[in-house]
Amino acid sequence: MHDFRYKKNQLYCEDVIVKKLAKTFGTPLYVYSRKTLLDHYLKLKSAFSQINPLICFSVKANSNLSILKALVSQGAGLDIVSGGELYRALKIGCPAQKIVYASVGKTDKEIAAAISKGIFFFNVESLAELENINRISAKLKKITRAAIRLNPDVEAKTHKYVTTGKITNKFGIDLESAYKILLLRDKFKNLNICGLHIHIGSQITESAPFVAALKKVSDFIQRLKDKGVELQYLNIGGGMGIVYDRETPQTAQIYAGKIIPLLKKTGLKIIMEPGRFIAGNSGILVTKVIYIKHTPKKKFIIVDAGMNDLIRPALYSAHHRILPLAKNLKSEKADVVGPICESGDFLAKERYIAKVKEGEYLAVMGAGAYGFSMSSNYNSRLRAAEVMVAADKISLIRKRESFEDLIRNEKI
Amino acid sequence: MHDFRYKKNQLYCEDVIVKKLAKTFGTPLYVYSRKTLLDHYLKLKSAFSQINPLICFSVKANSNLSILKALVSQGAGLDIVSGGELYRALKIGCPAQKIVYASVGKTDKEIAAAISKGIFFFNVESLAELENINRISAKLKKITRAAIRLNPDVEAKTHKYVTTGKITNKFGIDLESAYKILLLRDKFKNLNICGLHIHIGSQITESAPFVAALKKVSDFIQRLKDKGVELQYLNIGGGMGIVYDRETPQTAQIYAGKIIPLLKKTGLKIIMEPGRFIAGNSGILVTKVIYIKHTPKKKFIIVDAGMNDLIRPALYSAHHRILPLAKNLKSEKADVVGPICESGDFLAKERYIAKVKEGEYLAVMGAGAYGFSMSSNYNSRLRAAEVMVAADKISLIRKRESFEDLIRNEKI
Repeated sequence: MHDFRYKKNQLYCEDVIVKKLAKTFGTPLYVYSRKTLLDHYLKLKSAFSQINPLICFSVKANSNLSILKALVSQGAGLDIVSGGELYRALKIGCPAQKIVYASVGKTDKEIAAAISKGIFFFNVESLAELENINRISAKLKKITRAAIRLNPDVEAKTHKYVTTGKITNKFGIDLESAYKILLLRDKFKNLNICGLHIHIGSQITESAPFVAALKKVSDFIQRLKDKGVELQYLNIGGGMGIVYDRETPQTAQIYAGKIIPLLKKTGLKIIMEPGRFIAGNSGILVTKVIYIKHTPKKKFIIVDAGMNDLIRPALYSAHHRILPLAKNLKSEKADVVGPICESGDFLAKERYIAKVKEGEYLAVMGAGAYGFSMSSNYNSRLRAAEVMVAADKISLIRKRESFEDLIRNEKI
Repeated sequence: MHDFRYKKNQLYCEDVIVKKLAKTFGTPLYVYSRKTLLDHYLKLKSAFSQINPLICFSVKANSNLSILKALVSQGAGLDIVSGGELYRALKIGCPAQKIVYASVGKTDKEIAAAISKGIFFFNVESLAELENINRISAKLKKITRAAIRLNPDVEAKTHKYVTTGKITNKFGIDLESAYKILLLRDKFKNLNICGLHIHIGSQITESAPFVAALKKVSDFIQRLKDKGVELQYLNIGGGMGIVYDRETPQTAQIYAGKIIPLLKKTGLKIIMEPGRFIAGNSGILVTKVIYIKHTPKKKFIIVDAGMNDLIRPALYSAHHRILPLAKNLKSEKADVVGPICESGDFLAKERYIAKVKEGEYLAVMGAGAYGFSMSSNYNSRLRAAEVMVAADKISLIRKRESFEDLIRNEKI
């Protein structure tokens, strides 16, 4: 559910006509609904209220400072994956003790910064990293909390690029190795290895893979307990899918119903890392039709947003619904493509799209997660502006780039 | 051929030890050899010297100002695809009459800017665009040169995302429609439709598709001549492949030998738009090994360059050779992966890679084209620095981004 709806045939974001935003700020334009964003966070919080987890929003899904600030103001923590994301988290005043840090490739500098700032804990992905964090903690004379990221070897049934819990993936530590590490955790003098982490992938629409993973983790925790190794935290990651097309993903309630019993059984404090579930449907990408092109084989709707603005269709074969800003019941089969000089630059292929004319606008739905955050300057295109709507209030939360921005760091 | 070679077991870029650059400027780091860049341009120029084409470097392949300036200083023109690329071209002093402009989605603003600056010509991709350029030219009281981009419907035998000359692609105008337009070209009062353009794709390693396309174009030109329609320019695009792995692409000489007879027959002034051929092997991406991770199934070499720095492996299943900066004959099967939190973030999969330790460096070869120009801030990672080497001279041509750059246009 989201707050992008037609009223009198005009697409609104909350109480604002989206076309007005397109006219004011230009296109391509990311438009977010603050209400949709917060509703998804609160829905999850409510579904899991009996166990009161710390919900850390996954910054990589949408790292705009205003998005992060809105969520943190409601009590969310943040799940970060880099020094840049740490910088963002602190910039908007996220309490350090609500920041968890995952990534297979944390550098010394990033680790030192995160330790110095006193983040909640690191999700640790390898023995080498564990040793490194221990070493850096010693240097900084700190005791650092760490959760071992387990690779539970389950099939998440999603795109191969976002499956992260298979044993052939680069993520996490296999159960047997993790078990050995935990039995010997005291040898890491400057670490408090007090938690476990799993994250099996992204855009997973059913509960079975989560349940399978959690059962493995649950048994694992029991094995440790039997050896006298007590933990405090269980970070269950993110990965809950959303509706892009005809998926029927589980609701927060159903998801909670399936896993709360397993989580309770562990007796551990739960951390969650949703990204897409919270931000995905809270944003759209608004684009203007530049040309309608008829070829002997196809109709192309050429728009001013390209794969540099939204790479998901090209990279993940992702489906995004495409709606006209002015409702139109007539549709025609077409490819919706961007201006970039390669065939991978498309937003929709051979799909029935509302009939639009040059100069009219389309909305690419479900663009709130992994949209702007993956955007680039490919073809020397300026990255889009971002706007947040709250009821009838409009805030420009990122202004469109300028030509000067393109070359800012270059020297001739 | 390129100027990245081992001397005494150290990888050099021309006369500079690459490791020294990595230490000085940090990693990930793009390193370019000026000599390799210019050699490729000059090789092409020399191979085609009998017909003296205008060689317009494809800015999208590598848009760094210093790269563009180096080529333009040797007489190259530029092939642009956006207002941002026009800005870059003019910034480094490229004469406007050496700029050609292609893209299926040129906006009014971009068209007006290019007309005002007096570029050589537009490669026009649709009837709608032709009408639009005519309209804007009238408004600006100019006569604008245009080349019709033909879609010759040939199979380029390359990755589907970079095939651009099939009739189901968004590019160009089919021959029959183009023929009709050209017969009636006088009705476009503010256009001088004086050329044809083809570009059938990228990283094409054999001459057959080029020859097939040019034969079609050649017949097409004759048909027009028979009707009294004389043209002046033929833009044959780019697309020449390079060696990434075990390809044996045609040399410039062989390519020239195959197509010069066809080009001569047209009697037209030839324009070429090479990108990868010139820049591809002139750059490498240097990255540091952060962790070596052994899992039950695989060895992972985790490096500090990710898919945000080089997206070609994830997006095009592209192969890049990976060499150690310190030569090492021992190798081991491994995945080379970046720090980004998805399985699509890899540079090599299950490949024999030189044995390296944490803290050592690897070079990702052939990263001079579609490397930095496609890079992003995904995972809030700072975009890499770029360095150009000319003999023993080192120039930082783009400094590494800072955290401030990440949020420069954001408002909270």
